[in-house]
Amino acid sequence: MAMQYHHVNYEKLERFCIESFKGYGFNEEEAKQITAVLLEADLSGIESHGVQRMIRYHKEITGGMVKIDAKPEVVFETPLSAVIEGNDAMGQTLGVQAMQMAIDKAKKSGFGMVTVRNSNHYGVAGYYSRMAAAEGLIGMSMTNTEAIMVPTFGKQAMLGTNPIAFAMPADPVPYSFDAATTVVPRGKLEVYVKRGNGLPLGWAVDEEGKDSEDADRVLKNIIAKTGGGILPLGGSGEMTSGYKGYGFAMLCEICTAILSGGTTSNYIYKTPGRSNIAQCFIALDYGMFGDKKAIEASLSKYLQEVRDSAKADGEERIFIHGEKEYEARARVLSDGVSLNDKTYEEMKMIGEYTGASAFLPEYLD
Amino acid sequence: MAMQYHHVNYEKLERFCIESFKGYGFNEEEAKQITAVLLEADLSGIESHGVQRMIRYHKEITGGMVKIDAKPEVVFETPLSAVIEGNDAMGQTLGVQAMQMAIDKAKKSGFGMVTVRNSNHYGVAGYYSRMAAAEGLIGMSMTNTEAIMVPTFGKQAMLGTNPIAFAMPADPVPYSFDAATTVVPRGKLEVYVKRGNGLPLGWAVDEEGKDSEDADRVLKNIIAKTGGGILPLGGSGEMTSGYKGYGFAMLCEICTAILSGGTTSNYIYKTPGRSNIAQCFIALDYGMFGDKKAIEASLSKYLQEVRDSAKADGEERIFIHGEKEYEARARVLSDGVSLNDKTYEEMKMIGEYTGASAFLPEYLD
Repeated sequence: MAMQYHHVNYEKLERFCIESFKGYGFNEEEAKQITAVLLEADLSGIESHGVQRMIRYHKEITGGMVKIDAKPEVVFETPLSAVIEGNDAMGQTLGVQAMQMAIDKAKKSGFGMVTVRNSNHYGVAGYYSRMAAAEGLIGMSMTNTEAIMVPTFGKQAMLGTNPIAFAMPADPVPYSFDAATTVVPRGKLEVYVKRGNGLPLGWAVDEEGKDSEDADRVLKNIIAKTGGGILPLGGSGEMTSGYKGYGFAMLCEICTAILSGGTTSNYIYKTPGRSNIAQCFIALDYGMFGDKKAIEASLSKYLQEVRDSAKADGEERIFIHGEKEYEARARVLSDGVSLNDKTYEEMKMIGEYTGASAFLPEYLD
Repeated sequence: MAMQYHHVNYEKLERFCIESFKGYGFNEEEAKQITAVLLEADLSGIESHGVQRMIRYHKEITGGMVKIDAKPEVVFETPLSAVIEGNDAMGQTLGVQAMQMAIDKAKKSGFGMVTVRNSNHYGVAGYYSRMAAAEGLIGMSMTNTEAIMVPTFGKQAMLGTNPIAFAMPADPVPYSFDAATTVVPRGKLEVYVKRGNGLPLGWAVDEEGKDSEDADRVLKNIIAKTGGGILPLGGSGEMTSGYKGYGFAMLCEICTAILSGGTTSNYIYKTPGRSNIAQCFIALDYGMFGDKKAIEASLSKYLQEVRDSAKADGEERIFIHGEKEYEARARVLSDGVSLNDKTYEEMKMIGEYTGASAFLPEYLD
């Protein structure tokens, strides 16, 4: 059966989320931080990472994987760097804290890099890189994730989707790149399974390490950890350079797990009751390279030249990274957030659990 | 006609190159630096970027695009950063100077990032990142190049091959990733044209922006700048996430051209007599994140786990980035550097021009 979609008012949804997270035991500021990261995805039109994930966080919080009263500790620090032991705190509150530290260091010294170990799922990486861009800095963030990417010539998932996000101020829209280093995220496979469609070749391999069009089989293997997984950006083998996506994913592992004294993707969710995810947050003041306004203007000029360059036959527009998401915001704020019935049912349950039922937003359509 | 390959002794080839560059007017140290970068590619088994490129440098030096007596200037500097105006000096000497500055800053403060504008082609990006790794640091280097990559949905080359290199010490082999952000480099198209083979789909687009298997047509378009070009890592459109390769290429443009006050790829080789290439060099002391030996050990452990993970059916080995190149070194040092007849003829001519003919290495086979 096709899923039914309805819209709810953004501000009401925001209020519901904040009240729910308070209901779990987070304080007001934490509840607001978590909600801001979560709804940023819905505001950007990225439904897969938005309020649809409430149920995931619900399970992790109520199951004890996320420790509401965790006390994260700064275990190593220099003027330019810090390592935070997350002690299984909520990924979003850790992420906001860590990126704020990186921003403060960059404002003082030009560069700040903070790594976090033993964190949890932290939402969209781009939220954190844009935090820095909003303060007039270059921002980067990365997270490792449960292993789902097979290395080139392998058939066992050893790396995560390992997204890398990068943002910098520009006119008229900040530049914001945020991409998993796999060809596609797991969510896209799930969509293909639901639709009953075959997978495009070059997305995933089966339990023998062979390119597979069988969405159902690939996903079942991933869930049962019986081999196979999603391919790195660039696909399988060497013909279309899949080892490059594998390399960018490795860069992410190094900046997150290795530089935090944390856990690589192949050990994530392996210790009962813990996720052991690691993250990295970088802020850089490009005033270290000259006049900031001139640097921003030169980026804006180049981005406009790319926008204005000749389109492939049949195409009407060349997008700059982050533009689609930026443009979705006004639409979502006016039309509301699009929710499917399943998510709404989950929210009802969450409202009952957290005592936030009174704030459950009604359907607008 | 198939090309004939022969081997020459590595040390003799090195001597020939050094004497040739001295013949152009470089001093002893510069000649050694340029030769070291150039032959690093041959030592790594990457023939396309090695001594085969001598003819390119010959043309750029004798044609005046590379200024032998250029005086590069540090035009902006902070404890963590610098911008070098290259004044059209040789890319390799600028690269070594800039990476050494970044290394010195990282050793003193933890982080160093140096950008260079108005440089020239600087050889393999990985040479510079490995300079930092050899000093116990994380190293990164990037360069923009003449525009050859079409952005997603475009048909006009607006970005370069824009390689990103990253290196870090590890046992038993340093980790060293060095990849163009296009699916393939231009050299691979040239090989397909020579062989008369069709291109794999997903490598390049024609003058209408459509996926093309016609190697000859694509290369002619690139040379004549009549549209089309090589695709970003991830291929065309959105199905296999080509916008991610386009994003990594943009990250390279920002770190090189934008942060140096330099020139983006779409303006490279557009001013007569100048290349206007820009580069970036980053060094980071991972001692900022804890005990260096422990960090290196955790990277080495993870890389070994990836090596040891299950192979796809029919595959015997999972490679870590930089391993193939590292292993080529011993082979090249014992068996000699593989040269084709065309390259050898060019070297003869270069020897006559520079007065280094007496040092031309004889064929070993």
